[in-house]
Amino acid sequence: MSTIYLDHAASSWPKPPEVVKAMVECMEQYAANPGRGSHAMAVKASRTLFEGRKQLAKLFRIKNPNDISYALNTTMALNLAIKGFLQEGDHVICTAVEHNSVRRPLEYLRQTRDVKVSYVKTDAQGHLNLDDVAAAIGPTTRLVVCNHSSNLLGSILPLSDLGELCRGRGIKLLVDAAQTAGTVDIDVNSMGIDMLAFPGHKGLLGPQGTGGLYVHPDIELDPLLHGGTGSQSEAIEQPTVRPDRFEGGTQNTPGIAGLVEGVKWVQRETVERVYQHEWNLTQQMMEGLLGIEGVEILGPDIGQAKTGIVSFTVAQTDSSEIAFILDQSFGIAVRAGYHCTPLAHETAGTMERGAVRASVGCFTTESEVEQLVEAIREIAKHMKP
Amino acid sequence: MSTIYLDHAASSWPKPPEVVKAMVECMEQYAANPGRGSHAMAVKASRTLFEGRKQLAKLFRIKNPNDISYALNTTMALNLAIKGFLQEGDHVICTAVEHNSVRRPLEYLRQTRDVKVSYVKTDAQGHLNLDDVAAAIGPTTRLVVCNHSSNLLGSILPLSDLGELCRGRGIKLLVDAAQTAGTVDIDVNSMGIDMLAFPGHKGLLGPQGTGGLYVHPDIELDPLLHGGTGSQSEAIEQPTVRPDRFEGGTQNTPGIAGLVEGVKWVQRETVERVYQHEWNLTQQMMEGLLGIEGVEILGPDIGQAKTGIVSFTVAQTDSSEIAFILDQSFGIAVRAGYHCTPLAHETAGTMERGAVRASVGCFTTESEVEQLVEAIREIAKHMKP
Repeated sequence: MSTIYLDHAASSWPKPPEVVKAMVECMEQYAANPGRGSHAMAVKASRTLFEGRKQLAKLFRIKNPNDISYALNTTMALNLAIKGFLQEGDHVICTAVEHNSVRRPLEYLRQTRDVKVSYVKTDAQGHLNLDDVAAAIGPTTRLVVCNHSSNLLGSILPLSDLGELCRGRGIKLLVDAAQTAGTVDIDVNSMGIDMLAFPGHKGLLGPQGTGGLYVHPDIELDPLLHGGTGSQSEAIEQPTVRPDRFEGGTQNTPGIAGLVEGVKWVQRETVERVYQHEWNLTQQMMEGLLGIEGVEILGPDIGQAKTGIVSFTVAQTDSSEIAFILDQSFGIAVRAGYHCTPLAHETAGTMERGAVRASVGCFTTESEVEQLVEAIREIAKHMKP
Repeated sequence: MSTIYLDHAASSWPKPPEVVKAMVECMEQYAANPGRGSHAMAVKASRTLFEGRKQLAKLFRIKNPNDISYALNTTMALNLAIKGFLQEGDHVICTAVEHNSVRRPLEYLRQTRDVKVSYVKTDAQGHLNLDDVAAAIGPTTRLVVCNHSSNLLGSILPLSDLGELCRGRGIKLLVDAAQTAGTVDIDVNSMGIDMLAFPGHKGLLGPQGTGGLYVHPDIELDPLLHGGTGSQSEAIEQPTVRPDRFEGGTQNTPGIAGLVEGVKWVQRETVERVYQHEWNLTQQMMEGLLGIEGVEILGPDIGQAKTGIVSFTVAQTDSSEIAFILDQSFGIAVRAGYHCTPLAHETAGTMERGAVRASVGCFTTESEVEQLVEAIREIAKHMKP
């Protein structure tokens, strides 16, 4: 039984073959230490890192590729942005549908730096009202942190409006693009995004262990890592030049070689087409699931904009039971539980049983979605109402 | 012209073929998100991470594999250890041959947490006198940070004695094993190592983007990253359970799949045999270089213990000029400059011109070493004395 993989919101799979090929080529031909030597292999490694920055800059319309620094994952990028930016006593606003990778750093700073945190609620479907954000702004508000799409609900948050609101008040906007980089259009300029954290291994189709942070040139951050940079080796302090300032130690060169090819794939396909493909599939899935007794779908209604996520509950059954049966009896990989976003579950009213999250990717087919719907139909028959 | 790669101290290359094979298998078959779902692919990814911990624990004689957490690189592991452990006003001792990945975090804490830092000098060859460390200990000393081998000089530092000294005084010992993990025997128990930071991409033969930190179960650290963990999703705070406490976000699963095979390779070959192989080659290199007029070798004398590093200067010539000629005219990859360790250059008296560092690995041959020696002989003829 081959797996039907519907867990793209956690990690996309499969990857385009050229992603794996580029990783192998790097490992076999030039897995030297970029920026740490002048020899030909190290130069080739450095070029790969720069090529990645260039491709990412093009995708997100970032002027200077060196304003992008690599990270192990989005969590690391968000930690750099949040801990590097917020200072003693600052006020920060985020939404109630943020991932733990935003909430936990903020709560940590609440305890250690007396940072004040306001959580602005969305409606139950995950839609944000700008007036609620505006109402939360105070004299010490320095930052708004917002995901582009909720990883539970799939709702798309109004970044452009949020960016305009922030700009007008001199507040910086940090966006968590974990669920949208590569699948929903992102333009840091027109959207007014000051910092953008993104994963390499989801919509950008690169391997796990990659991701990064864009930081607007006007913003100065305290580095998360202090250490070797290859540049300005003699200085006691972390260099100020980017990307070295935010990239301590050896980078994941083979991973980034793969990411380069993933981003190129997305650019050839176009983000618009990927979005449309995923949207069509979520609509098909929702239509199918809505016809099943006991199934309740979270997030935006049919017809509304959303990312490739459909979260749902089946009667009062614990979501992990559903996911287990899907995996064991139907070979369908989904995710169950709280998805690192307990506040979003409060918002959606699913704190008790969690939710099953099925998420599609650019290689998901209509037939796979149909098989999920049929499996849920089968399972729902046997569940208590 | 095929490259003669003598930059193993920066990154080992080539890797055993099974390393690349394991990465490809992971990318093609189970590149799902470990610990984030119960489905079969995610379970396989989780198992790979645990297999890596098990292999590493065996290598370093660590009792509980979950006391090892993964990191992007050694720099990240050292930042976690140093920033997570040291508190306001603490005193820390390190050597004057530490890498910037130790020095810079310490200097950062000096500025931000009033941490007091003492640098204990080694002799010009990089040998540490225990009495000097003992003399630096004061009532507020909580931590000693020491590399196992200097990345410039190749000297091996007396960890067992240092461990005994620290234990007797209730001081914790953090070891930077960037230059020794996989090439010099490390036993955290007998050596009294409380925290061990190590790279995956050097002596352990894994890909770049891997590494980790061992933390003794009695030690509590403030996490470097706060974020998604898959476990205890509903908690506002980072979970206390290891390794989740220190591993925020998605890990580099394909990289760790490769690392597993690298560590297994080292275990089959044995660390002792790798050490002996590299030592033989450094002795050969030193004997050859010592016969060339104008060449001065840094670090331990012939016959003494050392890692696979031979750093040297050629007359008064800038080291980067030598490295450039080696690369361009002889196809030999070495490293030149300050090697992220300016204090070690002060120790060795090479702050002006830097040093050429040639470093061997487990696949380096006598013939390659001979070609380096002959190339330097050729180059030295044309340099001003």
